[in-house]
Amino acid sequence: MSNLDDILKSRRDTRHFTNDEVPDEVIQKALQAGHWAPSVGLTDATRYYLIKSDEVKTSIKKLFLDYNKKAEERTDNAEQKELYRSLKLEAIEEAPIGLIIAYDRSVLNQFTIGTIGSNEAVKFSSVCAAQNIWLSLTEQGYGMGWVSILNYYQFKKILDLPENIEPLGYFCIGKPATNYNNQPMLQQLHWKQKSEAPICNEIKEIHQINVPDFDLRSENEIKNKSDFNKRLQEKIDSKTKPVGSLGMLESLAFQMATVFETLNPKIEKPNIVVFAADHGIANHGVSDYPQDVTRQMVNNFLDGGAAINVFCNQNNIELSIVDSGVNYDFPTNAKLIDAKIAKGTQSFLHVPAMSESEVWLCLDKGKSIVQNIVKSGSNCIGFGEMGIGNTSTASVLMSILTGFPIEECIGKGTGVENEKLLLKQNLLKKAIDNYSGQTELIAQLSYFGGFEIIQMSGAILEAFENKMLILVDGFICTIAYLIAFKINPNIQQNAVFCHCSAEKAHSELLNYLEAKPILNLDLRLGEGTGCAVAFPILKSAEAFLNEMASFESAGVSRK
Amino acid sequence: MSNLDDILKSRRDTRHFTNDEVPDEVIQKALQAGHWAPSVGLTDATRYYLIKSDEVKTSIKKLFLDYNKKAEERTDNAEQKELYRSLKLEAIEEAPIGLIIAYDRSVLNQFTIGTIGSNEAVKFSSVCAAQNIWLSLTEQGYGMGWVSILNYYQFKKILDLPENIEPLGYFCIGKPATNYNNQPMLQQLHWKQKSEAPICNEIKEIHQINVPDFDLRSENEIKNKSDFNKRLQEKIDSKTKPVGSLGMLESLAFQMATVFETLNPKIEKPNIVVFAADHGIANHGVSDYPQDVTRQMVNNFLDGGAAINVFCNQNNIELSIVDSGVNYDFPTNAKLIDAKIAKGTQSFLHVPAMSESEVWLCLDKGKSIVQNIVKSGSNCIGFGEMGIGNTSTASVLMSILTGFPIEECIGKGTGVENEKLLLKQNLLKKAIDNYSGQTELIAQLSYFGGFEIIQMSGAILEAFENKMLILVDGFICTIAYLIAFKINPNIQQNAVFCHCSAEKAHSELLNYLEAKPILNLDLRLGEGTGCAVAFPILKSAEAFLNEMASFESAGVSRK
Repeated sequence: MSNLDDILKSRRDTRHFTNDEVPDEVIQKALQAGHWAPSVGLTDATRYYLIKSDEVKTSIKKLFLDYNKKAEERTDNAEQKELYRSLKLEAIEEAPIGLIIAYDRSVLNQFTIGTIGSNEAVKFSSVCAAQNIWLSLTEQGYGMGWVSILNYYQFKKILDLPENIEPLGYFCIGKPATNYNNQPMLQQLHWKQKSEAPICNEIKEIHQINVPDFDLRSENEIKNKSDFNKRLQEKIDSKTKPVGSLGMLESLAFQMATVFETLNPKIEKPNIVVFAADHGIANHGVSDYPQDVTRQMVNNFLDGGAAINVFCNQNNIELSIVDSGVNYDFPTNAKLIDAKIAKGTQSFLHVPAMSESEVWLCLDKGKSIVQNIVKSGSNCIGFGEMGIGNTSTASVLMSILTGFPIEECIGKGTGVENEKLLLKQNLLKKAIDNYSGQTELIAQLSYFGGFEIIQMSGAILEAFENKMLILVDGFICTIAYLIAFKINPNIQQNAVFCHCSAEKAHSELLNYLEAKPILNLDLRLGEGTGCAVAFPILKSAEAFLNEMASFESAGVSRK
Repeated sequence: MSNLDDILKSRRDTRHFTNDEVPDEVIQKALQAGHWAPSVGLTDATRYYLIKSDEVKTSIKKLFLDYNKKAEERTDNAEQKELYRSLKLEAIEEAPIGLIIAYDRSVLNQFTIGTIGSNEAVKFSSVCAAQNIWLSLTEQGYGMGWVSILNYYQFKKILDLPENIEPLGYFCIGKPATNYNNQPMLQQLHWKQKSEAPICNEIKEIHQINVPDFDLRSENEIKNKSDFNKRLQEKIDSKTKPVGSLGMLESLAFQMATVFETLNPKIEKPNIVVFAADHGIANHGVSDYPQDVTRQMVNNFLDGGAAINVFCNQNNIELSIVDSGVNYDFPTNAKLIDAKIAKGTQSFLHVPAMSESEVWLCLDKGKSIVQNIVKSGSNCIGFGEMGIGNTSTASVLMSILTGFPIEECIGKGTGVENEKLLLKQNLLKKAIDNYSGQTELIAQLSYFGGFEIIQMSGAILEAFENKMLILVDGFICTIAYLIAFKINPNIQQNAVFCHCSAEKAHSELLNYLEAKPILNLDLRLGEGTGCAVAFPILKSAEAFLNEMASFESAGVSRK
């Protein structure tokens, strides 16, 4: 057995250290080993931070304890919980040296090689460095333990790491007090057995992908439509109230009845679908929030802590969360619908956001998500979105698709201030000026689109085909509607515009669409919150039409 | 220099291979090296796929070319683009062996160790395996090249990889044709220079984070109002949403919390009180409906058939009906609160509508009705009215109390048409001109008032005294509010204006009061329907403040 194999085999994730000091040369040699690791596109993004201070270690230990408790609560199995509690999973305070291996994601702000498919390549380079350091320390007779049980948000905060520095974890370094009987500690303690051999299969053939065909059938003819409409209006006017005095509730009730093709319309199993995706344009500083917030918010949706969760709970609306293309690998989660096209779009400042086949794929994914919801018995669907940078995408799409100058299509998004707004405006103007592509819709969407926006468009088109009531949320959702409307203008019959956003361009867009929104509460959150908050108004429309007495039944005089 | 250092240093990201075959033993040994890599929580999630088929390689090469073209378009710099084009970034078709290193994210479906802070730890384990494989191949005299320029979605599709398998990339393996002069190829080709040494800093102190503390001390302890307001605003701003993005819901939540004097405000037993009375002015043909409709509608309320019944049912609001002075003797009915002053007012066209003592009686009756509702445990009260002719009364009161000319205070009421509107206008103008009484409020109310309107004013004043949230309905209710406001301007702290009526004068009146209504749905029915329909919006405000996660609790980055 070679020397390398010995090192590879004896490298341990160490959590037990002696009190021996670690000489500086050892660390230097180990970091040099890290430096020899691959670096995608020679981005050289890996950064190291050393920790020797007890105070700093104690603070980090606190973060560990906090999250370890959270981890422990994740299992209901009493025996497993007990065993978990007994495990020593770190040596933050005992190990003489703490090391943070991190990467600087700001390298992505420049043109880089090898990051177009996924910018994770940058962090993977740093992980390779971590492994090299581990091996070097092992060879030198030292050990390292990787602590990943941390709230990274607070971790960065207490260490005052810049926003663009992303730590892989906290690494404890020292002289090992044990070699765990030459096996992983978790195996030694019977937590789990490491598999005997690597799992490897050969792939011998390729699998063909079918590009979907988004067929748009014409609306089924409603026979005697004008007769139905007349009877419906009579029913509305027979209610014990002055004619027209319920204003918009009357037009909503009328619409609901025509969409559901019944004089006694009932909303069944309402569902709000939130599509989440990342946007390449976010790398250019158009948002106040880092891109990672898209992922964080998806987790917040799944955990039930976001505004849309609260409002859906309040109003008994089913909530569906879709990963349309978040720049993160979510663990399999029954609550998260996987429709990921890629880990975020490309920046349309330089290149098309996606390929045309991805546009079709988005439309198709949106469609199939709605088909599944239809199967659940729902006849009313609302749409929301989450995606750092997506107001920029939406603004550009609005300008391209309506002809409004970009200046009129831009708002504050999640809240950027004046100077940044100007930057955003110039950037988007440049992107549009750069575009020399076709004026055909799919080409435009391919260049400037967002995964979640186009999936919403596909979903809206399918909701119409299934005679569903379609609840449109704010600015970004209305852009998705606009795209769908360009494909099939009939969808307006089913569309309810739930609110007018504080995003200034939204009211212009609603005017353009001749749409009258239900609410005007200065909301600008997205997530479908406008749909959820407006939903009880729709229920009021349904309720008066179905439940109010008529002049005749109540014995009230008509005028 | 040790053997390990030599291997680490000579490991290259290889893109040039000879035609030599790679013996199976070499691959096996390398995969074994990968298998010795760390595996977070012993999840053993790394998976390997070997590719030898030319057909499969060709398909993967196509994916590379597609994305590489996209990458190339990312730079506007002509020289950089040219250099980029000249780079050989893969050897998919030439390398004898293709390897896919992937991880199975379904391991996260079980309880795992070390993934609570970030599930990325699973993929990092696989990256460590990749680095081990690289080192092993280097030691054995072979080379590997990591191809990350791929559309991973399509990559998985054509290889038919299961949904839960996430590839790190495609790895080309073979005998290196060059060692790139012992440096990274990109450096050799002058793309970029690798930095001389690792970048490392020591962190010597921690940075304090202030986690806001929202645990509730007893209400009495909150002495300092501005301190309370500050903490309240902090709580609102700590929610996982951009600051201010819930628009009016935020101001409603703020108001609710200050009215209830708690950071966790809850609406308890909401109650809408509908005051009904008749008006002498109705005898002059100002309404399209006969006066008897007031009585008929009171019966409709009691029978549950009116709009306000339907909306209160929908939103779980208690409904109270008050006979403030309907021109009818109702039989005793437990559901009808008897506060009758007289069977309708006199016509103010000729005489005072009521006596000054009746004005006081109205205020007092309104007060005692609220006192009874407070006893039931309610902290939120809405007001509605019913009374044929009462828009005329309200218009005159508006003109008298605000100074607006009567023409601006008149609307269609329940729906009179143009000619009738002119008649109504002339009639009311004449009534005002006839008035030679005092400018003192009680005298004005005595001359032009309505029983239900003044009872509402008394009720509003009492609701304020009891720290209730006061829901103001449409035009007539806002006139009652205006009267109460003239008596005690502090009531505005507790008042929520639920909607702007289609009654034209209402928006003028709201402007006069600097009030911003929640809804604008063209309602003009009265009965408190605006309060009932808007009520869920208040519940949304309450819900977000109490139930949404904070940035800290959800681990979401603030801007």
